[in-house]
Amino acid sequence: MIYLDNSATTKPFPEVVDAFATVASHYFANPSSLHGLGMKAERLLKQAREQIAAMLDVKPSEIVFTSGGTEANNFAIKGVAWQYRRRGRHIITTEIEHPSVAEPCRQLEELGFEVTYLPVGPDGRVSAEQVARALRDDTILVSVMHVNNEVGAVQPIEEIGAVLARHPKTLFHVDRVQGIGKVPLDVKRCGIDLFTVSAHKFHGLRGAGLLYVRDGVRLTPLIAGGGQERQLRSGTENVAAIVAMAKALRLALERYERDIGWLRELKAEWLQALAAIPGLSINTPERDSAPHIINFSLPSGIKPEVFVHELEKSEIYVSTTSACSSKRRAPSKTLLAMGVGEGRAERGIRISLSFDNRREEIKPAVAAIQQAIKTLSEVTGSHGDEV
Amino acid sequence: MIYLDNSATTKPFPEVVDAFATVASHYFANPSSLHGLGMKAERLLKQAREQIAAMLDVKPSEIVFTSGGTEANNFAIKGVAWQYRRRGRHIITTEIEHPSVAEPCRQLEELGFEVTYLPVGPDGRVSAEQVARALRDDTILVSVMHVNNEVGAVQPIEEIGAVLARHPKTLFHVDRVQGIGKVPLDVKRCGIDLFTVSAHKFHGLRGAGLLYVRDGVRLTPLIAGGGQERQLRSGTENVAAIVAMAKALRLALERYERDIGWLRELKAEWLQALAAIPGLSINTPERDSAPHIINFSLPSGIKPEVFVHELEKSEIYVSTTSACSSKRRAPSKTLLAMGVGEGRAERGIRISLSFDNRREEIKPAVAAIQQAIKTLSEVTGSHGDEV
Repeated sequence: MIYLDNSATTKPFPEVVDAFATVASHYFANPSSLHGLGMKAERLLKQAREQIAAMLDVKPSEIVFTSGGTEANNFAIKGVAWQYRRRGRHIITTEIEHPSVAEPCRQLEELGFEVTYLPVGPDGRVSAEQVARALRDDTILVSVMHVNNEVGAVQPIEEIGAVLARHPKTLFHVDRVQGIGKVPLDVKRCGIDLFTVSAHKFHGLRGAGLLYVRDGVRLTPLIAGGGQERQLRSGTENVAAIVAMAKALRLALERYERDIGWLRELKAEWLQALAAIPGLSINTPERDSAPHIINFSLPSGIKPEVFVHELEKSEIYVSTTSACSSKRRAPSKTLLAMGVGEGRAERGIRISLSFDNRREEIKPAVAAIQQAIKTLSEVTGSHGDEV
Repeated sequence: MIYLDNSATTKPFPEVVDAFATVASHYFANPSSLHGLGMKAERLLKQAREQIAAMLDVKPSEIVFTSGGTEANNFAIKGVAWQYRRRGRHIITTEIEHPSVAEPCRQLEELGFEVTYLPVGPDGRVSAEQVARALRDDTILVSVMHVNNEVGAVQPIEEIGAVLARHPKTLFHVDRVQGIGKVPLDVKRCGIDLFTVSAHKFHGLRGAGLLYVRDGVRLTPLIAGGGQERQLRSGTENVAAIVAMAKALRLALERYERDIGWLRELKAEWLQALAAIPGLSINTPERDSAPHIINFSLPSGIKPEVFVHELEKSEIYVSTTSACSSKRRAPSKTLLAMGVGEGRAERGIRISLSFDNRREEIKPAVAAIQQAIKTLSEVTGSHGDEV
């Protein structure tokens, strides 16, 4: 099996699954319970929070655990909107955000907020100047992803942060779901107020993610109730998944330290091999792109979903655009925004790597890709209606 | 160890933890991914949905998986409020709901909605007549819990449903978190439109719960994005926790079938033994109360949190009010609403059973309770300031 869909989800580290099972079985009490069993669970939770905060270079009190990245993005955007609605109702984001940012923005538009969606250049990036021009007196939030999930373009977070430093009443949210453990980010230097993390993108488990909420930033809770997470997020804490996330993050960052140079080389080799395939267009920008995401468009006439199934016959797993958009069969939003044209945007394929991928996979995978293109071109060619 | 805090959380069944670990390790792909690995995960998810729907006697399409009960309650209440805000802005609930219902209601009040909080009688119950009197033309939602989490009072859901049958524009939400697997409920007969379930209350794992959304009911998503759950709830599905929830529910319902009569007897024996302790007042109503929750108030002068720690020296684990309120040291909301008076409401202790508790636990636990009361009365007596 050659698994090349790590931006959709990663295979959890075995140690992480073990940690989950141990905590769920032996430290099962509710951390809010006053008794000793509850206190043991609470201590584990506190420890995980401190470990994660240290690894992300933030304070433990600035971490709000959530059920995952989608909840954290919704919480950041709606939480700012409702909390600061009297200050202003304007939000700035980009045309290439993940649906978990774009959809909450759209919902807020229905409820009387105004959202500016910044376009991107051919390199899949917005510029700090665009943000500066879009800022208004009533702008309460700027939300820009760190690493784009479809093509891997890395956004100029530090430059945007420098612009926002002159607008202290505008909060800055960064979706770091695809960047954690792959592309470093200096939270303080970038002036980030809120950022999103999801455990299952770095070999942790689903059910755990977090929103960083800088000290001093207030948010209206999305999930209200018992007030477990500093009155900001309620619900019995998923201690086992959170402890597992702390472990996954430690292991992922260790892999980063050891292997990031190698991962960059691996991506370069992939790109070189793919560029040699006739009719295939590389969409991932050459500069400022993440070390693990490669996007290309198939030759015209080939349906990407058919191509995915053809490749899977050789146990090679890739995706069309992002996983959560893949079943809609719509053209890739990011590719459209980059201006590659509708046809090419409809035929996008994403390869997403992890540190567990191997150099030896490139040759057979590229051969299979070539063969699949050949097979499917012949099929379409014989029908003669789509070339 | 004698664990008597099952309404805070239950120990997961070992088979359930195993199922989680197996699915997380071997079926880790994103169910939204088009390829074969994604399809395998999607099949598991579909199967779990069908199993759970059959056990709850609803349609698979009516199940929306969430991260737990608190999210599901927030989703039900805010989802109805935003979806039907043009129809009306009045909500009816009770004074004894879980914070995950009460807090969203309070948040909506800040945003222009009006909420009627119905009081309860000395038996901890609202009446259908109260609901009927509170209904208005602009009432869009009635939210009443099935089993109260603090004292175990079972609410007259069927009678309320009969009232609401004459008000088809008012939706009916029932928080079933404490009732599932302990007190049956006929969803159709009661005319329920929405109900909440949480896996970790019946020996499942945290990270999984669900909202039943009757076919035809529309809701504004609380967590928007990729649209994974019928466009109603987004985020990569926690397949492992959902499969584990299906297994936990099956095992819990099997235990119900086999042991519910025995659990009722166990509760009766507990009540009898507790009633014999001088100075202790039983708060759980005699009639219409669940088979697993017993609430009593300590004699005056004893602080409940000190009592909890005293008991834990004998490895006996009970709670003061609900887990999520226990750290605030406020009087029990439910006991106050029942009119027992502030003093007694401040000294409430909850014992919550599961099918794993044993008859042999009663004698040593009751002896330890008596001893703890004696010890702590002497301590307070010697200070002479609180008797």
